[in-house]
Amino acid sequence: MLARYFPILEWGKTYNGQVLTSDLVAAVIVTIMLIPQSLAYALLAGLPPVVGLYASILPLVAYAIFGTSRTLAVGPVAVISLMTASAAGAVAAQGSAEYLEAAITLAALSGVMLFVLGVLRMGFLANLLSHPVISGFITASGILIATSQLRHILGVRGGGDTWPEMLGSLFSALGEVNVWTLAVGVPAVIFLFWVRKGLKPLLMKFGMGARAADIAAKAGPVAAVAVSILAVMAFDLAARGVNITGAIPSGLPPFAVPSTDLSLIQQLFIPALLISIIGFVESVSVAQTLAAKRRQRISPDQELIGLGASNIASAFSGGYPVTGGFARSVVNFDAGAQTPAAGAYTAVGIALASLFLTPLLFSLPIATLAATIIVAVLSLVDLKTPRQLWTYSKGDFSAHMATILITLLAGVEMGVIAGVVVGLMLYLWRTSRPHAAIVGRVPETEHFRNIKRHDVITVPHVLSIRIDESLTFLNARWLEEYVLEEVAERPELRHVILMASAVNAIDASGLESLEAINHRLKDAGIKLHLSEVKGPVMDKLQRTHFVDELNGKVYLSQDRAFAEAMRDAGDDAPPPGDMARGMI
Amino acid sequence: MLARYFPILEWGKTYNGQVLTSDLVAAVIVTIMLIPQSLAYALLAGLPPVVGLYASILPLVAYAIFGTSRTLAVGPVAVISLMTASAAGAVAAQGSAEYLEAAITLAALSGVMLFVLGVLRMGFLANLLSHPVISGFITASGILIATSQLRHILGVRGGGDTWPEMLGSLFSALGEVNVWTLAVGVPAVIFLFWVRKGLKPLLMKFGMGARAADIAAKAGPVAAVAVSILAVMAFDLAARGVNITGAIPSGLPPFAVPSTDLSLIQQLFIPALLISIIGFVESVSVAQTLAAKRRQRISPDQELIGLGASNIASAFSGGYPVTGGFARSVVNFDAGAQTPAAGAYTAVGIALASLFLTPLLFSLPIATLAATIIVAVLSLVDLKTPRQLWTYSKGDFSAHMATILITLLAGVEMGVIAGVVVGLMLYLWRTSRPHAAIVGRVPETEHFRNIKRHDVITVPHVLSIRIDESLTFLNARWLEEYVLEEVAERPELRHVILMASAVNAIDASGLESLEAINHRLKDAGIKLHLSEVKGPVMDKLQRTHFVDELNGKVYLSQDRAFAEAMRDAGDDAPPPGDMARGMI
Repeated sequence: MLARYFPILEWGKTYNGQVLTSDLVAAVIVTIMLIPQSLAYALLAGLPPVVGLYASILPLVAYAIFGTSRTLAVGPVAVISLMTASAAGAVAAQGSAEYLEAAITLAALSGVMLFVLGVLRMGFLANLLSHPVISGFITASGILIATSQLRHILGVRGGGDTWPEMLGSLFSALGEVNVWTLAVGVPAVIFLFWVRKGLKPLLMKFGMGARAADIAAKAGPVAAVAVSILAVMAFDLAARGVNITGAIPSGLPPFAVPSTDLSLIQQLFIPALLISIIGFVESVSVAQTLAAKRRQRISPDQELIGLGASNIASAFSGGYPVTGGFARSVVNFDAGAQTPAAGAYTAVGIALASLFLTPLLFSLPIATLAATIIVAVLSLVDLKTPRQLWTYSKGDFSAHMATILITLLAGVEMGVIAGVVVGLMLYLWRTSRPHAAIVGRVPETEHFRNIKRHDVITVPHVLSIRIDESLTFLNARWLEEYVLEEVAERPELRHVILMASAVNAIDASGLESLEAINHRLKDAGIKLHLSEVKGPVMDKLQRTHFVDELNGKVYLSQDRAFAEAMRDAGDDAPPPGDMARGMI
Repeated sequence: MLARYFPILEWGKTYNGQVLTSDLVAAVIVTIMLIPQSLAYALLAGLPPVVGLYASILPLVAYAIFGTSRTLAVGPVAVISLMTASAAGAVAAQGSAEYLEAAITLAALSGVMLFVLGVLRMGFLANLLSHPVISGFITASGILIATSQLRHILGVRGGGDTWPEMLGSLFSALGEVNVWTLAVGVPAVIFLFWVRKGLKPLLMKFGMGARAADIAAKAGPVAAVAVSILAVMAFDLAARGVNITGAIPSGLPPFAVPSTDLSLIQQLFIPALLISIIGFVESVSVAQTLAAKRRQRISPDQELIGLGASNIASAFSGGYPVTGGFARSVVNFDAGAQTPAAGAYTAVGIALASLFLTPLLFSLPIATLAATIIVAVLSLVDLKTPRQLWTYSKGDFSAHMATILITLLAGVEMGVIAGVVVGLMLYLWRTSRPHAAIVGRVPETEHFRNIKRHDVITVPHVLSIRIDESLTFLNARWLEEYVLEEVAERPELRHVILMASAVNAIDASGLESLEAINHRLKDAGIKLHLSEVKGPVMDKLQRTHFVDELNGKVYLSQDRAFAEAMRDAGDDAPPPGDMARGMI
């Protein structure tokens, strides 16, 4: 029981020297990668760079205690940073103390929400986000993030929460472009793109192993950071208008207290909920991918608790919302991390960096950080998915495109909400019009098939309908309409058989519809039969009066039901074989 | 095409003298029944009684032109009147001109909404209301309505939108009870109850036919109205404090114009939407019940248009929101109405009544109208349903009770909204945890059954999972978790077979989950197979790369899949018979 809420108790029992070595190696590699990334994402969130470091220390320790994934690395990530900027920007101006307080409060709120959802085992709520909606949201966020960082490459002021706003402010500032900033930013972008695509093959050509080459390539941003710091110092670029990071306060994260101002909490409530859900969905899918590779398990409900604890830890140490990041988790995994302890060691590494390394970062150009963000998020933009969705399902395609468009045009929060609403509406629409087929018997067999697709035996006074969906309130009305419409068209009808082989459940509304159909058919002098009802469904039906009141019978097999209905009407069942086809 | 939007063109073609006679007879009976009912429901809506008459004239004509039910009678109904009182009461004081304007505007808004939903064929939205939610809402409304009318029986002032408010105002006014009002109201309630239960058997005992006795019993309120008017006049009860209807302006409905004040429209938007949906759901279920008895059809989308036109007609003739009522439609049906023309003739009847009959109603006691309302709505209170739901499904029971409680405690609008939200959450929760079974082969057969329920053959390196639900975004995450968890528990596993015989659809999220499972199993060195995939599902899958990338095969039959997986692992398929059981 205790181990369920504290997974550390389980893996801690078998911790030994060998695992320690693996974890330490992974921690060193991840630390090196995390330093520039944390600074960059804090910039994206509109926060002082050091806040990115703060958000990469205690949250990792909290996750190591409560998380169920062995290799997930939590910390600031791009999409959540953008959402933080959007939510905090709505209540305060960037750079103000209120803005930082809003970010900290967002982390606290999101942490509490995730924690509570986890304790209540409500992880299923994340299901409201379908894959097309999530991927649309991430593509649009990637575009928004990359666009928002262009101003740092150009060395101009700018802003905006939506794409048109961002583009507008960029265009109107084109006259103020700083060429020295451009001279740092553009090579940085090109170098980082090359590192992603070209460095790994090059290193492997020089005899490096594939895994090592991969990890070395991930350290590319560190090289870009080092070179651009040296360039700034060598050419005194700060004096030429290149924005630099400036003095970063050295030291461990401060003890921070989230705001208890109710009106602020009210304003941040919905954004915090959206940040929680998006963060959870992303994190769980990363954790599942990695766990499956080693045949390990994660528990989504406990993950909610782990991420909740991480965000609460982030809030109380001056950080902002965090979640499990894809890139850093993959590096952690590939570098050989065995347990969440690797995360705790990474935290120590980042803490050391924020104690001793920050003076070195004084001359780091903002343009370099923007370049690392742009290169990282452009890989989020996925142009293959729309095409695949178009081929597979027009409805899912619409949900995907609606999410992209609304996110670009109305911002991240509206984008997520619209995606959920469109996805649900589409689902309800589909479920409310399920597939059903009028079936007949395939000659010389006991099989029943769709009369539209197959050459089958039917008789005018018996109607067999196969329903390919569970009967719930979403389609109960459809069922009544469908059956009664088909009945109204057949004046000779005396028997209706509902073939329930694909009905996995019947809720109270479905049951009431069946009762209504039964009563109405009785009024019209028609018998209603059921066939091939599944075991669990029949168990539930037998707890009601429905079976007693049924104006016909429940048959185990459709074949038997059809044969009896034919006989009852005075006609003999046709003998097997083609003779029977005369009756069609 | 034209006949689709104007059903009158269809039934009008075959209209003849015999049908005319039937329709006229029904119209006379319904008119007599409607007069007291219309006055009473206007009272319930907090409107002058004559508004009830106005709402029973033009709406019937509009429905006769656009409606698809042959026997539905539209007009004021109890639940919609209560909702109107609640919505109009939120923006203006009862009795004021603004209150009446709000009621008229509600009818216009609701009419436009229904009409637009009908043209867009969005009737499926009504599916959001499950049967347990609707019946809970109606039970609670019945309790609220009966309670709200008690003050008229007691002759005291009172008010409130929620049950505690109503009870509180009743208790605090108990000292002011008017005994003369009580002397009218209590006998009226008792008489009307007796008419409902005892009059029909009595009339039949005196040799009247069952149908005629039924109709005569429905005219009970007319007798109560007549007797109480005489009593008021004979004993000058008005002077003794008994509230009477007073002067009702004679004449045809006025031409009214709904408000175009945007802030009013904004305030009334949600209430109008709820009124539309509740009205539509009630009306369609009445119409379907009656249509089925004569093997007729109604078209739900065209019903939206018909009800929309009725409400617009109501708004422009000084009425308030209307819908198809259960009691009046049944009377219309039983009295022999053949076409919607009966409704138009009823409209003429009511118009004549409002021209010539209103002076007679001057002395009608409000207590009598309240008594007719109380007796009518107490039949809405349904105490059997909670018990049935408890037996059948705890989830549906919870949705039902939540709707009742929230409607009683927070009013009708919150009640409907909460019901929809609770119902959807419950559905999502259920769908996100569908049924799946690990199956094995029944010895000596080709059938596969749940290993927990049956004594079946399995082998450690093959896992067969039957999924009893369509794969959608609501359960895509569950599927990954379920499969990977089962796989994580079986170190010897080399084959996973997903048996898809009950999978009716796979959306893009479901497909992506299958792809994820495929990749993860591949990483773990396990083959993934599918068996018994339905035709339409397979058609869609073949438009994707999934089948090519599948790390195993797609089999038509589970038996074949199982046999090949066993052989592939080096073990021979067990021969049929009990020898095979040694391998379990």
